[in-house]
Parts: sequence; C-alpha cells; structure tokens
Amino acid sequence: MSNLETVAGVGENEALKRTIARLNLSDHALVGPGDDSAIISAPDGRFAVTTDTMIEGHDFKLDWSSAYDLGWKAVATNIADIAAMGAVPTALVVALTVPGETQVSWLEYFADGLKAACLALAPGCGVVGGDLAASEQIMISVAAHGSLEGRSPVLRSGAEIGDVLAVAGTLGRAAAGLALLESGNRDAISAYDDWVNVQRRPQPPIRAGVEAAEAGATSMLDLSDGLARDAARIAKASGVTIQIDPQQLQGFEAVLEEAARAIEANPSDWVIGGGEDHSLLATFPAGTKLPRAFKPIGVILPKGPAPVMLGAGPMPERGWDSSKSSTS
Amino acid sequence: MSNLETVAGVGENEALKRTIARLNLSDHALVGPGDDSAIISAPDGRFAVTTDTMIEGHDFKLDWSSAYDLGWKAVATNIADIAAMGAVPTALVVALTVPGETQVSWLEYFADGLKAACLALAPGCGVVGGDLAASEQIMISVAAHGSLEGRSPVLRSGAEIGDVLAVAGTLGRAAAGLALLESGNRDAISAYDDWVNVQRRPQPPIRAGVEAAEAGATSMLDLSDGLARDAARIAKASGVTIQIDPQQLQGFEAVLEEAARAIEANPSDWVIGGGEDHSLLATFPAGTKLPRAFKPIGVILPKGPAPVMLGAGPMPERGWDSSKSSTS
Repeated sequence: MSNLETVAGVGENEALKRTIARLNLSDHALVGPGDDSAIISAPDGRFAVTTDTMIEGHDFKLDWSSAYDLGWKAVATNIADIAAMGAVPTALVVALTVPGETQVSWLEYFADGLKAACLALAPGCGVVGGDLAASEQIMISVAAHGSLEGRSPVLRSGAEIGDVLAVAGTLGRAAAGLALLESGNRDAISAYDDWVNVQRRPQPPIRAGVEAAEAGATSMLDLSDGLARDAARIAKASGVTIQIDPQQLQGFEAVLEEAARAIEANPSDWVIGGGEDHSLLATFPAGTKLPRAFKPIGVILPKGPAPVMLGAGPMPERGWDSSKSSTS
Repeated sequence: MSNLETVAGVGENEALKRTIARLNLSDHALVGPGDDSAIISAPDGRFAVTTDTMIEGHDFKLDWSSAYDLGWKAVATNIADIAAMGAVPTALVVALTVPGETQVSWLEYFADGLKAACLALAPGCGVVGGDLAASEQIMISVAAHGSLEGRSPVLRSGAEIGDVLAVAGTLGRAAAGLALLESGNRDAISAYDDWVNVQRRPQPPIRAGVEAAEAGATSMLDLSDGLARDAARIAKASGVTIQIDPQQLQGFEAVLEEAARAIEANPSDWVIGGGEDHSLLATFPAGTKLPRAFKPIGVILPKGPAPVMLGAGPMPERGWDSSKSSTS
C-alpha cells in the first residue's frame, strides 16, 4: 500500500476502519467499536460526559501541530474535563472531519496520538466509537466519559468561605508555547521547546482529579481559559470571592521568565491568562492535607465586589507586574 | 435585542448560553449543563454511546433544510443508533460549529429542533452538554447515550439460521424525498412533501428498539445506508445469508410509485438503496410474536455465496424490476 493513499481514494469506511485498528481498547467497554453503539460499564450507576471540539485555523494550525499532536491534545483536553469532576476517564467517542485529499497515514498518526495520550494520561481509557466524514476544514470533536467510582461529583459551585484554593499542574506554559510559535523566532522556539510541547501535547494531571475528590475538594474545574477567567467561574458558581496570593504565582512565573525575555513577553500574562495547560483548580476545606499534586495559591472569602482578587486588588484581566503586586 | 445578532457579534459563550436555555432537560441528568461534565444516571451499571456527524454540503444543504430540521435530524439519526441496541435514549451532547456571521436566531431554531425531536421521539431524553465553535462550514456532531434497563444489548452478530427478518418503520421515503429535492421539480416537491419531510425530519421508530429487545430480537441495526447494505452488515457479522422476499417489499414500493413517476425514478432503488429513514432492521427466532411495529420481510439462511439475496438471486446493488423479481 502506498503512503500517499488518501481518504477520498480508499473511502471513508475503509479509512475509518484502518484508523480504529490502531487504537487501544477501553478496559471499560462491554461492546466496543463496530456496532450501532458501544456499551460501556458504569459500575456505580452513573457516568460523566463532556464534549469539546477543535477546529483547524481556530484551535490549531497544521504548520504547528502534527496529526499525532492533535490526537493527543483532543484526548487531553477532554479527559481534563472528566478529571475535574473527580472522575476516572473510561471511554471516548471521536468525530473527525477531514478534506478528502488527507492521507490515510495522517489519520493513522492521529490515532497513534489518541492512543498514546490515553495510555499516558488515563490508562484503561480508550476510543469506543468514531465517525469520519469529509469536510473542507479539519474538525475534531470528542465526547469523553468517566466513572465517579461511587464518589460525589466535584462541582464548580461548592467552594466555601475559608477554603484553600489550590492548583494541580502547570500554569502559563501552553500560553508561553503558543506565544513562542506565534513569534516565529526559531531560536526561541527551539530553546524553549518544553513549553511549545505543552501547547502541542498538554499533560493535564488527570489522576489529581480523583485525588482531589478523595481529599474532600469542595469545588474543582479544568483551567481551559486561564486562571483569571476560570477562578471567576468557581467564584460566581459558589457565590464567593477568590483571593489569589501573588507570591504563590511567582514560582509559575519564574520558570517562564527566560522564554518571555527571548520574545519580549510578560510571563505573568501567561500565568494569569493562559489556559491550555488544562491544569486543575480546586478548593479544599482549611486544614485539609492537600494531595501532593496540589499547590495552595489562595483562599476563599465572602463575596465582595470582584469575583477574583490578586492580593488586595481585583484580578487584572491579563498579567500584572509582579515586582509591584507582590508587595500587596 | 435584534433578530440580526450574529454569533461573532454576541460571542460564542453567550450564543451557546442562549441556545442551551431553549432546550429541554434530560430526565436522566444528575448534573446538567454548566459544569466541566454532566453526570448521567445509568441504573443498570452500563450505558450505550454512539456518535454521528453531519457536514454542510455533504450531509445537508441549507437551501433544503432549516435550522429546525437539522436539529431534529441530528437527534433522530443518533438516537436511532441507541434504539438499535435495544436501549432507551437518555442524554445527548452536541458539538456545533458555524460561521461567525450565523444569526443567533438560527442557533435558537436549531435548539428548538433538538428539543422537538427529543420530546417527540424519545421523551425523557435531552441535551446535557454542548460546544459551539467558529468554522467555515456548519458541522453538527452529536454523541447520544442510552440505557439498556437491564436488557442484553442487541448486536449485529446474533442472527441465527431460521430467524425471521423484520423491519420497523418506513423504507425508501427519505431517499424519495432527497430525489424530489434534487429534481428541482417544484410541483413534485410540493405534491409529495410527506416524503421530503421524512428526508428533512426522519421519524425513526425509537420505541420499537426496546420492543424488539423485549421480544427476543437476535440481531438489530439502524438502516442508515439502505436495506441492501445494512442487511449485508448483519449477514456478515452473523455469518449467515439473509434472504429478503421481494413480495414483502412491494408495499413499501407502492406508496412511492406516484412520486417516482413524477420525476421518472425507480421506487425500488429507494426501497433497497435508500437509508435515511433510520428504520430498524432486526431478526427474531421463528415463531416469535413480532412487536406491532415490525413487518416480516425475509428469513435467515445458512451462509451462501451472497450475503443478501432478493428472492432466489443475489441482492442487486440498487433497485430491481419488481414486475420480474416478484416471480422469483
């Protein structure tokens, strides 16, 4: 078979069959791909479900992300939403639309990325169904499923006054990676490829979601739109104000400073505004022994004029000058 | 608020919020839309899941289908795959991508179509999560979920020699509707708008899926690609040959004859080759009292040279001349 076979050439059914053949099976599938529906185990009588879509040109560029990267990222971004409920990812269905001239090998690498992300981030989880169709733009839509294993779901609305705010995972690295790619500065892209790789293949702390739920987290979400915006979501849903300690963000900022200097950017923009690390933000009752993955970064206050404060002032929309704000 | 507000104008978040506000709730949602994931009840410890995507230009044309039609059809096509397992549809997640200039009112009508189809075809089922993104083409991707309520799933692979083959729902009407639309013959489109409406808003016999499972169906699938192709899927998965009785198809053909004459088409092409009615094809042990929705159309034979036979000969790829084949 030629490497140059296209989806239009072999037909969508055949291309889908070859793509699915490369995937790992879900440990939770009672009936896997190939029938009208898959049947998935839900041992505690409930399942979590979420969906997220990535569109070529809007959410990714083919110049910057390989098929493998996109498969990985589609899994990572969706299962982070499962983890944010305190659930274990179990099964995915993937809808993919591609131009007819797309090579079948591209689909196969995409499948390899799906599989690698499942194995690395959520062992036992796998793709149980898919759909492949022709389109002008590439579109990747995933629905992810999870099991709460008897635990209560951790909602956004449960934060209580006096709780500790904590984050598991990195902050600002994916945004740094995107800024590096956008800069077009090849030396900087190559020097800081760790951050570029977080943008391409995020590593959300999936296990930490269950650990947070087990430790008694009162609220949790996946940081997809940045610390400032996502913290405001918890604050609004819970009817509280979140106060973030700027000193606790300095460590996140420090690791990005060199890369920021290389492209004349402000690392605090990335830490506050950048979301695609898909880290987990959660609140815990004061005195909780936090799971190792979580680092405290703030506290929950009674509802004030601003949903989120950075030190004594309202959270800026973007970054801040840490040399000043750290005195607040 | 103006009727001319666009998705780009109000922003994707606001447009999504307004769209979701028009939807019915799922009776099975323990946590509905608005958090990282929804939580859905799965009382027997399992759930069915399937996904299907519709792409503008490939699967529909905006000249022929309204936003309401598309919402309806997205639900109908997906829940037919749930019904085909013998499951009750419980919850949907919907990913929609539209150009930024799309009017918010278009999304609202789309939501009305989603809701109407749930209420009409699968009461209790509702949309529990969604995603809205900007794209050049409209793309609608749904993942549908269902509950087996303790029953065994009805697979494609269980047909046994001696079983009766039966169909619930219509055959060829959606294909007739599509042919009428493609003909551009306005008089014919208007005269046979019942068939055009089956194309726009299919009415799969969702309840019949559960009834078939309860009656002991040995195999079942949703007719999405036409009787010939889908019967072959059961035959191949079950390792048998399916013999369809052409006389039993004549009733399906007869109702389409007038429309076929109006645009010089062959109604048997539609009955054999047309699939978008999303009817259910199932096999039952001989002597089973079939549920009322099912009409017997054939029998299961030991595996022969052709997976599907029409009378004494192999099933033609497309239609047949019923005046001849009925003598076979």
